[in-house]
Amino acid sequence: MKIWFNGGLCEESQARVSVIDHGFLYGDGVYETLRVHRGRPLFLREHLARLRSSCRLIRLPLPWPGSLLARRARKTLLANRLEEAVLRMNVSRGPGPVGFDTRDCKTPTLVMMERPLPDYPPALFKQGVTAAVVKTRRNHPLCLPPEAKSTNCLNGILAKQEAVRLGAFEGILLNLSGFVAEGTVSNVFAVRAGRLLTPHRSCGLLAGVTRNVIIRLARKEGIVVREVEMTLSEFARSSEVFLTNSLFGVMPVTKFAVIVSGAKQSRRVGDGKVGPVAKLLAERYRRAIGVFF
Amino acid sequence: MKIWFNGGLCEESQARVSVIDHGFLYGDGVYETLRVHRGRPLFLREHLARLRSSCRLIRLPLPWPGSLLARRARKTLLANRLEEAVLRMNVSRGPGPVGFDTRDCKTPTLVMMERPLPDYPPALFKQGVTAAVVKTRRNHPLCLPPEAKSTNCLNGILAKQEAVRLGAFEGILLNLSGFVAEGTVSNVFAVRAGRLLTPHRSCGLLAGVTRNVIIRLARKEGIVVREVEMTLSEFARSSEVFLTNSLFGVMPVTKFAVIVSGAKQSRRVGDGKVGPVAKLLAERYRRAIGVFF
Repeated sequence: MKIWFNGGLCEESQARVSVIDHGFLYGDGVYETLRVHRGRPLFLREHLARLRSSCRLIRLPLPWPGSLLARRARKTLLANRLEEAVLRMNVSRGPGPVGFDTRDCKTPTLVMMERPLPDYPPALFKQGVTAAVVKTRRNHPLCLPPEAKSTNCLNGILAKQEAVRLGAFEGILLNLSGFVAEGTVSNVFAVRAGRLLTPHRSCGLLAGVTRNVIIRLARKEGIVVREVEMTLSEFARSSEVFLTNSLFGVMPVTKFAVIVSGAKQSRRVGDGKVGPVAKLLAERYRRAIGVFF
Repeated sequence: MKIWFNGGLCEESQARVSVIDHGFLYGDGVYETLRVHRGRPLFLREHLARLRSSCRLIRLPLPWPGSLLARRARKTLLANRLEEAVLRMNVSRGPGPVGFDTRDCKTPTLVMMERPLPDYPPALFKQGVTAAVVKTRRNHPLCLPPEAKSTNCLNGILAKQEAVRLGAFEGILLNLSGFVAEGTVSNVFAVRAGRLLTPHRSCGLLAGVTRNVIIRLARKEGIVVREVEMTLSEFARSSEVFLTNSLFGVMPVTKFAVIVSGAKQSRRVGDGKVGPVAKLLAERYRRAIGVFF
């Protein structure tokens, strides 16, 4: 794969950052993950806007206009010629003296890399996946704003490790108040009494590009959508649950993996089958982006 | 400077990590900062023990025994021949596929780098420094254990940015319950009614190697030491405050920088002079490690 590295394209083996890059020393950076469909990046404008907003939240001055980043993204895609893929844009604080003083880092490091789209077997969408509500809680906005998509990902990584141990496709994190926040790499939706519920931004989450699209699509279908504070027991009583992110779009959750008295148990979501709201919105989303899985 | 990079020493310009190293992608790694005095690392055993404990907390299998890491540290120091310096040991999750699944990363990346000791002018120790209590709160143990010295440092970096804006030497973070936790790169001590107080580990902090030494030294001097929950107003009424870390040892705080109604103000700690407990322990610490600044 060719990688955009600072000023130009290079081979992956050449794309190496200095050990004093604050991205490596401190995870001091931001990123975006874009779905590439038929060789084109989806929702590029929205992702570039969020990249800028993430930078603002950690006070990382982004020296490139969006138009330049878009051109570089397109050059990266053209060089790799993948049809269905993932594009990761990464901006780190760049090299600088060891220490937390960000004024010492003069030049951010820009990396754009592409990967083939992960394999999501059709059975996942048809039968739904298992999600685990993990013990790790989502970062508190006063500690590290979850709205900044930063490369400080250990919170999500610890949650993912729990999910893996439970054999789950995704880990869902509560916030410190006990309300559902989001998945490690996805947003969460639930259906109760015919309404589509999703955690409010005030719960501390990254409001994904796909989350926003799904809310719009649902309202267009006449579905009542509410951003709410949802306790775990309310969440567990949902008739449907699904996850959204840029890569898989809408992923139905039909089972919860839980630990009861130290033992792993599996519980059905609703009747254990993919529900009508998830089905409808998955189809509408695919149509909206022109992707048919 | 020569750098230990995975299996051997190299020039700094050669010490470059892959852009798919999870240390760079996600800040997924741990580190230690050691004081080097007369060419030798201080408290090497304690730092190696904490490196291992940090690894355990983020479930990063450390493939090297302490004795091997110690040998490599000594080789790095020998190659650079600095007398008074800082040694940073860094272990990242290593290269792997993009994504939070840590099982995919097979080989951690090891970096040991040395830097000359930062310049701490004697006036800082004589007159004391300014500390700012910042708005950013310390990471909650349920989100990211502060006892893991991980390379997810944005929480401290955001706090440091606030301290810099306030012209302070260090930023002090409260935890989410409002109790004093620690500085961005230091532990905090206060003196009240002749007792030496420091935030309890349960407040969510990294119990520094120097913190532990200072507690031992103070008790040896007959000083009552208590690990406590300390509110900001209790903290502000201390007769003395000082910071500890491996690099500067004991640093007296004689002023607080605070924001009152949007304006920066400066407030004295106690009588605004370096107090007797800080002086005594700074001297004892220097004697213990054989360093005379």
